[in-house]
Amino acid sequence: MIAILKAGAPQAQIDNLIRWLERQGLKIHISQGDYYTVLGLVGDTSKVDMELLSSLDIVQSVKRVSDPFKRCSRDFQPQDTVIEVGDSGVKIGGGNFCLIAGPCSVETHEQILEVARAVKAAGANILRGGAFKPRTSPYDFQGLGKLGIEMLSEAKKETGLPIITEVMNINQLELFDDVDIIQIGARNMQNFDLLKEVGKLNKPILLKRGLCGTMKEWLMSAEYIMSEGNERVILCERGIRTYETYTRNTLDLSAVPTLKNLTHLPIVVDPSHATGQARLVKPMALAAAAAGADGLMIEVHNDPPHAWCDGAQSLTPVQFADVAQRVQKVLEAVR
Amino acid sequence: MIAILKAGAPQAQIDNLIRWLERQGLKIHISQGDYYTVLGLVGDTSKVDMELLSSLDIVQSVKRVSDPFKRCSRDFQPQDTVIEVGDSGVKIGGGNFCLIAGPCSVETHEQILEVARAVKAAGANILRGGAFKPRTSPYDFQGLGKLGIEMLSEAKKETGLPIITEVMNINQLELFDDVDIIQIGARNMQNFDLLKEVGKLNKPILLKRGLCGTMKEWLMSAEYIMSEGNERVILCERGIRTYETYTRNTLDLSAVPTLKNLTHLPIVVDPSHATGQARLVKPMALAAAAAGADGLMIEVHNDPPHAWCDGAQSLTPVQFADVAQRVQKVLEAVR
Amino acid sequence: MIAILKAGAPQAQIDNLIRWLERQGLKIHISQGDYYTVLGLVGDTSKVDMELLSSLDIVQSVKRVSDPFKRCSRDFQPQDTVIEVGDSGVKIGGGNFCLIAGPCSVETHEQILEVARAVKAAGANILRGGAFKPRTSPYDFQGLGKLGIEMLSEAKKETGLPIITEVMNINQLELFDDVDIIQIGARNMQNFDLLKEVGKLNKPILLKRGLCGTMKEWLMSAEYIMSEGNERVILCERGIRTYETYTRNTLDLSAVPTLKNLTHLPIVVDPSHATGQARLVKPMALAAAAAGADGLMIEVHNDPPHAWCDGAQSLTPVQFADVAQRVQKVLEAVR
Amino acid sequence: MIAILKAGAPQAQIDNLIRWLERQGLKIHISQGDYYTVLGLVGDTSKVDMELLSSLDIVQSVKRVSDPFKRCSRDFQPQDTVIEVGDSGVKIGGGNFCLIAGPCSVETHEQILEVARAVKAAGANILRGGAFKPRTSPYDFQGLGKLGIEMLSEAKKETGLPIITEVMNINQLELFDDVDIIQIGARNMQNFDLLKEVGKLNKPILLKRGLCGTMKEWLMSAEYIMSEGNERVILCERGIRTYETYTRNTLDLSAVPTLKNLTHLPIVVDPSHATGQARLVKPMALAAAAAGADGLMIEVHNDPPHAWCDGAQSLTPVQFADVAQRVQKVLEAVR
Repeated sequence: MIAILKAGAPQAQIDNLIRWLERQGLKIHISQGDYYTVLGLVGDTSKVDMELLSSLDIVQSVKRVSDPFKRCSRDFQPQDTVIEVGDSGVKIGGGNFCLIAGPCSVETHEQILEVARAVKAAGANILRGGAFKPRTSPYDFQGLGKLGIEMLSEAKKETGLPIITEVMNINQLELFDDVDIIQIGARNMQNFDLLKEVGKLNKPILLKRGLCGTMKEWLMSAEYIMSEGNERVILCERGIRTYETYTRNTLDLSAVPTLKNLTHLPIVVDPSHATGQARLVKPMALAAAAAGADGLMIEVHNDPPHAWCDGAQSLTPVQFADVAQRVQKVLEAVR
Repeated sequence: MIAILKAGAPQAQIDNLIRWLERQGLKIHISQGDYYTVLGLVGDTSKVDMELLSSLDIVQSVKRVSDPFKRCSRDFQPQDTVIEVGDSGVKIGGGNFCLIAGPCSVETHEQILEVARAVKAAGANILRGGAFKPRTSPYDFQGLGKLGIEMLSEAKKETGLPIITEVMNINQLELFDDVDIIQIGARNMQNFDLLKEVGKLNKPILLKRGLCGTMKEWLMSAEYIMSEGNERVILCERGIRTYETYTRNTLDLSAVPTLKNLTHLPIVVDPSHATGQARLVKPMALAAAAAGADGLMIEVHNDPPHAWCDGAQSLTPVQFADVAQRVQKVLEAVR
Repeated sequence: MIAILKAGAPQAQIDNLIRWLERQGLKIHISQGDYYTVLGLVGDTSKVDMELLSSLDIVQSVKRVSDPFKRCSRDFQPQDTVIEVGDSGVKIGGGNFCLIAGPCSVETHEQILEVARAVKAAGANILRGGAFKPRTSPYDFQGLGKLGIEMLSEAKKETGLPIITEVMNINQLELFDDVDIIQIGARNMQNFDLLKEVGKLNKPILLKRGLCGTMKEWLMSAEYIMSEGNERVILCERGIRTYETYTRNTLDLSAVPTLKNLTHLPIVVDPSHATGQARLVKPMALAAAAAGADGLMIEVHNDPPHAWCDGAQSLTPVQFADVAQRVQKVLEAVR
Repeated sequence: MIAILKAGAPQAQIDNLIRWLERQGLKIHISQGDYYTVLGLVGDTSKVDMELLSSLDIVQSVKRVSDPFKRCSRDFQPQDTVIEVGDSGVKIGGGNFCLIAGPCSVETHEQILEVARAVKAAGANILRGGAFKPRTSPYDFQGLGKLGIEMLSEAKKETGLPIITEVMNINQLELFDDVDIIQIGARNMQNFDLLKEVGKLNKPILLKRGLCGTMKEWLMSAEYIMSEGNERVILCERGIRTYETYTRNTLDLSAVPTLKNLTHLPIVVDPSHATGQARLVKPMALAAAAAGADGLMIEVHNDPPHAWCDGAQSLTPVQFADVAQRVQKVLEAVR
């Protein structure tokens, strides 16, 4: 960490600052220029509060030389994290590509079973389905809740597919025993209390990027989970909010190789929510695979026009099978 | 609500759609063109799921004629909501301008008392102070929690100022009995379960705009609170995320008059968090008052350079007194 | 086009409006609701000024049913445009993938020749190189100008590669006789006078997306060129401005399949400028190919660390050869 | 300027770099840490190409200590620039508030004269009116061109108001002899050749902020004009592009006090284009005055519903008179 001091900062205040930093266990290197003084802070600077330091009268600006995240950093752990999903044998990361598929919402026993069987046959190895649904309007369908999770469990028993579903608050966690991967949705990326709580579990957590989350904030949110002990975090890019309106969000695929440099955690991509349009899912799924993603999360519905939510972005099982097959070819091409 | 059907949509499917909409209690007007058919939906369309409707094969696009919010809408209640804060006599909205001031974080008994006395003397009528702090990094100071709320209570007893502080999860709410206004932070604007929970309380809620929250989403979040019965919602503009980096966020003051048209709820502005720089607080506070805001929320610290968080954006009590005085003059000029 | 009139609009004004619209050659369908009146405008609405219509007292809002672009629209011309580049035999679009490569700036005879030979050997079929450089600072290198174009011409003569370079103002166009494709840079996407001028030429134009250009605005800019008679427009996605700072811009690959639906024009992708980092170029190039792009534009320099501009994003010829080879495999996988 | 070198950079390369920087007239201070080396560059670093420096193998990152702009910097000239407009006696900046008003487009002799007389009576001291109009669609009204400028000239002769109008390309400049302030529109903020050309004139230039222009880029564009010799630049904030759709753009009023710190140039605000809605113009005009703007640019039309463009955002002369009067009161309140 580098602190650039203001021109003419009084020596007594500079000395005070240096002593204060040294008390935090840091070694300080001083570079005295004609017009400014630069302090180089060496040691574990992840715990130095940049905003506090920036706020001091004599400090002009502060710049991190190393990133503020630690446990999730590629520097901290050079090799890819490989996450095992329940006892299903499914792995994510380190060359293991996962294909997560299923409906936006769990609707009925028949629906989730039918979709589960279809996506399994098409090559999916994890089943998704929403039980608790975050909806912008209080008047829209909010999900089946506990019942939805039970239906997912049945589909798991029937097909053998491990299941993933979203948690929206701490008090729901008791219902997630049979869930294999817990999803933190985009709107909760910085719900820090929820992050801490899932950080205490012994289950993989899929952490979606917030609608306007920077990669740094996203990794800091992963760090929240990991700092509580749970190191099994999967990052999921699902589009960011921009000014463009033809697509629902702008899928930021450059996040995939950028994160591969910054972190050892696996990164999957959700082209369905990002684009909001079924016809864009296939090209963006192929692009994500080509960009180096560790997996895909795709919405599939047996009857998209009658889905209870987000039908516009769901593929039919037949369309999904086509995507799954093409994705394999792209993976072979880029390996 | 207007649904524009695709050219060549089969009549049988159009008839099906119309019957389905009518079963939802709507009256349907049909406009048959050479190239398209337009359905006008009349009735309570707030419960129609736009995404579901858009997803149908025969539908090209859907447009709301009226807004999707209801309880918070100016159409629903033309006169301004006036919110009484505890039994302090302080009112917000309908011409009552509030001045909320205090430190980012409650740090010590002495600090909060000293700040409380100073801001009261300078004209503030509500005391703010963070007890639970949402921080991007798990390694940064997270607030004093319960102890912080107790210190706020003491400052309230001592000065008579009603208090506002932020809640971060449902389970903390039991600690908020003596708190007069509960703040929902920007990162929780779409934490729908938390919104529902504070919607059951009999206390004013200050709902901050999310970092990338549209005005529509923000009002829908207010609607979540109101739909549970609590109609005492105060909106707080605190800057949105843009590409500009000189300021921390971009304070969207045009939200103030825009919301005045859309809703009857009061709107206050937080120039401290929006800009992140003490020297920008005064001009933006004056601008907010001139734009028609119902109040301001300003960070004040007795010793900004040593504040435990966000010191860079805090005013000293002397600076705050100057702002408070100027704000009065601007209010007189624009009334 | 649909115009939704305000509740209670006086019939006399409605009649006036209808007559005025009919005089513009439109047929008007009226849908009278209890609460509002909807006018459906049928005919060539591309010339109706939406803002003017929206501004009328009695109009609540206006919505286009069809897009405002015409010549570039897929509806207008269903089959892909195929663009022949000079007399080189190179084609772009309709299944013809182009590989444009070369340095950010033309620097010396030796440099451009060396790069040209290297990229040709690696599979590039068009040579790029900047002669007029738009730079944020007036103190940065502005390009060799006329001399740069002459050097490109020599490289063309020597290697047979057709050349592309950027024009920055109307008066420079006389120097572009030997240039095969004229590039309009991102900052000039809405320099309408320049667009009109290149619209009078008989040469392909590569139109980069503006830093905050919507797809609709971008297509309208293509329409400016085409409306002057030049229909040979190539669109180039090069990243949009968002709040994210790890990458220079956010490459919007979902623009590729979205534009494929909207327009018959070819779309190429520039991963070098979008990301600003050499190590991100390969994964994003592969992703662009997988998403359905009609070509790539990639910066290659024989000595990136000593490039006169944008060295950080340039590939070496060896790295480029690897990308070119992988791109072929991805193209085979997705076809 | 600070250059942070990578850990383990070979000493020979470091020495090379230092020699190269010294040859550019800079003094180099070296701070050797255990994990990194920091070079402090002292001298005129405005001409150092940051991107080039960043691209070097041994450089991890580069940070400017001082801003890259020079002539427009407040450090370079501490006192406010005061701009005299023609021989009208009107001044802008340094406490002189200007009120620029007029129609979006010049339409007819009668229209521009009527508006000019009305805005003069209401307190405007500069007349605006578009002759060359940048429109997103080639099919929309493009302005009266030369004829429009002649009509503005007549209105100037009749009322004594100095006039401002927009130039769109270099070749039009010969028509601008009688124009008192030349406007560079938002879409041309980085049309560098146009900036250089108006930099050679002896006339004030009003430089609008680009739709996604950062403040730094905007000031660098002012620097382009000033570096050619014309130091009479007026900055005009007119809203930036964000994800919010209720307003046309997001007026960034915090740019006003931020720029006041960075530059000595005057800053005016255009609430009409920023919001796109007449009813938002008054509150945002008052807010701009309260935030410390040096002037306002407001659209006024004698008959907004029949304006040839942008009628939705125009005030009537009566509404403008009300705004002008209120603005005066706010200016008195904040002085």
